[in-house]
Amino acid sequence: MTELAIGIDGGGSSCRAAVTDATGRILGRGTAGPSNILSDLENSLLNIVASAENALNDAGLSSETVSSVSAVVGVAGANVGDYAERIERALPFARRRVVTDATTALQGALGDSDGVIGAFGTGSVYNARRNGKLYGIGGWGFVIGDQASGARLGRDLLEQSLLAHDGVRPSSPVTQTVMAEYGDDPERVVEFAHVSRPNDFARYAPVVFEAAAKGDSVATAIVQNAAASIGESLDALLWPECEVICLLGGLAKAYRPWLAERHAVLLREPKGDVLQGAIDLAVKFLHEEGRGAA
Amino acid sequence: MTELAIGIDGGGSSCRAAVTDATGRILGRGTAGPSNILSDLENSLLNIVASAENALNDAGLSSETVSSVSAVVGVAGANVGDYAERIERALPFARRRVVTDATTALQGALGDSDGVIGAFGTGSVYNARRNGKLYGIGGWGFVIGDQASGARLGRDLLEQSLLAHDGVRPSSPVTQTVMAEYGDDPERVVEFAHVSRPNDFARYAPVVFEAAAKGDSVATAIVQNAAASIGESLDALLWPECEVICLLGGLAKAYRPWLAERHAVLLREPKGDVLQGAIDLAVKFLHEEGRGAA
Repeated sequence: MTELAIGIDGGGSSCRAAVTDATGRILGRGTAGPSNILSDLENSLLNIVASAENALNDAGLSSETVSSVSAVVGVAGANVGDYAERIERALPFARRRVVTDATTALQGALGDSDGVIGAFGTGSVYNARRNGKLYGIGGWGFVIGDQASGARLGRDLLEQSLLAHDGVRPSSPVTQTVMAEYGDDPERVVEFAHVSRPNDFARYAPVVFEAAAKGDSVATAIVQNAAASIGESLDALLWPECEVICLLGGLAKAYRPWLAERHAVLLREPKGDVLQGAIDLAVKFLHEEGRGAA
Repeated sequence: MTELAIGIDGGGSSCRAAVTDATGRILGRGTAGPSNILSDLENSLLNIVASAENALNDAGLSSETVSSVSAVVGVAGANVGDYAERIERALPFARRRVVTDATTALQGALGDSDGVIGAFGTGSVYNARRNGKLYGIGGWGFVIGDQASGARLGRDLLEQSLLAHDGVRPSSPVTQTVMAEYGDDPERVVEFAHVSRPNDFARYAPVVFEAAAKGDSVATAIVQNAAASIGESLDALLWPECEVICLLGGLAKAYRPWLAERHAVLLREPKGDVLQGAIDLAVKFLHEEGRGAA
């Protein structure tokens, strides 16, 4: 048994790992392919382990060292059924703990403090830690959820562009730009929408924010609507003594100026990212283990 | 050349045909399988012809009579590319004209008058005839359009049910009923949404209307929102002298009490259905032909 901890962020586009000593000092970092445990458990496991081995190699250690480390892995879907247990059983680390990516994101952003986080990328999801207990809402996907996601912003923009094309709602520079992109042919916009996945729609999110910043009326209404949904979700999670809200994800900065004042005053920069959260938890886990083995 | 006209409604769930004499008196009716020309042109053509043959047989005439009749076929998608011409070339009728289902629906509902129609079923679409000229808006599908469709009502209900489950929006009897249907498990609601097609969502439309009629706050807001979108679309098509609005489709009656007064006063019962529209046009076409052959 070594005194090494490995924190792993098993993300949907890649796995990232870092190996640390018992004080949390990072000795090496590694990456590998994606982890999507619900759709491809086998390859997710391979990539989680590969990222850890790459981190160990980066630290000048052999891949075999995996069998003597304490690891914490954060992955989306770890709260579904018995996935966490199944992954814990399959991993080769001396001791391993599998948690949701919400847990690692919270730890990264807030450290050990209580508070609320909202993450805004292709999807949108909210988590809170209150008196040490975790609560999560949102993240239900863009068909019937993720109201403040990039995917919904993009979908709203295309919808408003068609309504403007039909003369049902006012057009604006941004709806004209969208329609021009499709040769002013609504059939082509519809075709795009029907074959697109959330990340395809989400590519329009920066377009919406840029237009809104310039005062475009349609884009402004779309962003205000999404920001209102953020406000409702934060209100659902907040409690009177809560002192910290962190916004995470690619759209976090863009949403900042659109938030209600009561939430803006609580905004803090995240302490660290989701990998840092996994590292923190892995170091804690190592010390738990030390006590347990005494 | 006989003096027979055939009107055909080439619908997405079935083809319906009626054969008439030169005065429009119906001599026989026939049905056959669906017509979806954009996705399955070959079978659509077979079903269109089969419905006509069945109508002729019903009138005591042989199937071969198809080659001596004048036919008008209304099908969705006839305005896309050169589909109308391609279908006209392929059909065996002595003379044939292919028009969109909007044209036959307008003729059926309004006869020869000007006016506006709105059709509300799984989708939603609007058409107007003004000084004899046709204008259409909407009907872009439920992902980024069809704001007053059954599919959107159902999607909205599931979305509001998840928001209520998360404590973000108020719950109501109808959101509680929806969540109970899925064992109060939001993951199961999401699963349904991600594998569902528009007609699956649309099955919730009657649930929404029934709850709204009982004063359910969430259902009422959903219906009011959809009715507002109907109002916007009607306003986009209406002109000061327009005297008639007809609502068509399975949800037409349900929407009636929710419309704005300025539209409600213009509402009239449709004169006939989409097949009647095709019959009307076929009889007119027969007389055009008579003049042309003189």
